[in-house]
Amino acid sequence: MNYPNGKRASKKMNVSKHRSKPNFSNRGMSLEEDINVTNEYYLNAGIAVVHKKPTPVQIVNVDYPKRSAAVIKEAYFKQASTTDFNGVYRGKHIDFEAKETRNKTSFPLSNVHQHQIDHMKAVHDHGGICFMIIKFAPLDEVYLLPSPQLFHYWDDQMGGGRKSIPYHQVQLEGVRIPFHYQARVDYAKALDKLYF
Amino acid sequence: MNYPNGKRASKKMNVSKHRSKPNFSNRGMSLEEDINVTNEYYLNAGIAVVHKKPTPVQIVNVDYPKRSAAVIKEAYFKQASTTDFNGVYRGKHIDFEAKETRNKTSFPLSNVHQHQIDHMKAVHDHGGICFMIIKFAPLDEVYLLPSPQLFHYWDDQMGGGRKSIPYHQVQLEGVRIPFHYQARVDYAKALDKLYF
Repeated sequence: MNYPNGKRASKKMNVSKHRSKPNFSNRGMSLEEDINVTNEYYLNAGIAVVHKKPTPVQIVNVDYPKRSAAVIKEAYFKQASTTDFNGVYRGKHIDFEAKETRNKTSFPLSNVHQHQIDHMKAVHDHGGICFMIIKFAPLDEVYLLPSPQLFHYWDDQMGGGRKSIPYHQVQLEGVRIPFHYQARVDYAKALDKLYF
Repeated sequence: MNYPNGKRASKKMNVSKHRSKPNFSNRGMSLEEDINVTNEYYLNAGIAVVHKKPTPVQIVNVDYPKRSAAVIKEAYFKQASTTDFNGVYRGKHIDFEAKETRNKTSFPLSNVHQHQIDHMKAVHDHGGICFMIIKFAPLDEVYLLPSPQLFHYWDDQMGGGRKSIPYHQVQLEGVRIPFHYQARVDYAKALDKLYF
């Protein structure tokens, strides 16, 4: 995960899948942080209500010191059964995952897990809008790839096909998300183009 | 929270707001557990995709023993900024909170927090369906109260009005959720009556 071995991290630190990877962006923030900032902006501006789900943790042992807050003394990271982000936009349920790659020429499907695909397929079948936000970190380019396209490449891989989505296909089948000062990953604009 | 002081809990144990309260239900499960079972049934039966959000935890210190899973050694419970459950049902975003009371004659609004109301108002404004599931434990009766009704009582309280919702008003303005063997808290049926 994201913490140096046995090191005490800052209290402000959030658990982030992306934090452990070197950050190639000139913006100095991980994709996940950029999306969190975007979601805060969307909430305050009345554009959408989207939150990151907390990292699931299995709590085993909790201490209750007198007159102070409960301290979790032993816990383990659990595998999530859903995607990281969900919420409501223009009356529609939206659900997505965000992934960064250091690759310039393709998005490796090893970044995606079966349970995320299963969840997205279920949400899609129930009328929700699902997608993946992909950042090619060395290019500093971010794309929204709708879930049907993602499912296509995933199922193809499962049938023995290629283990990554070529960059030019992401360009072709996805929608580029340009950087915006307040909405750093302005995915709502991309959704407007695709669904509204 | 939910753990006896310093006691080691079973690995299977989930953090539950309701676990700490005595359980008056003949069914032997807390409301939250009943809803989790219901959501699993809904998912497998293709009825809805709804999940409980993980309890937000601020992780401060993690240990990485060689050849075994990372152990969280110090963490604290954080206040959630949303409700506990959300997902998609019949193409609509749904978002709700579940609360049990030992009271027979009214539902005390002290069970609800301002941040939950704020979140539900935002989701409601964006076209999501919001509600509260209320269980009167001594009566073993469960109701779905739509968020506009909840907002009415909340805002009234804020203006100096009564600090609880009378049981007969919950009966009148809510929809009774009868017990169902597989869908123990069959809220989807109540939503069908109200919204579809």
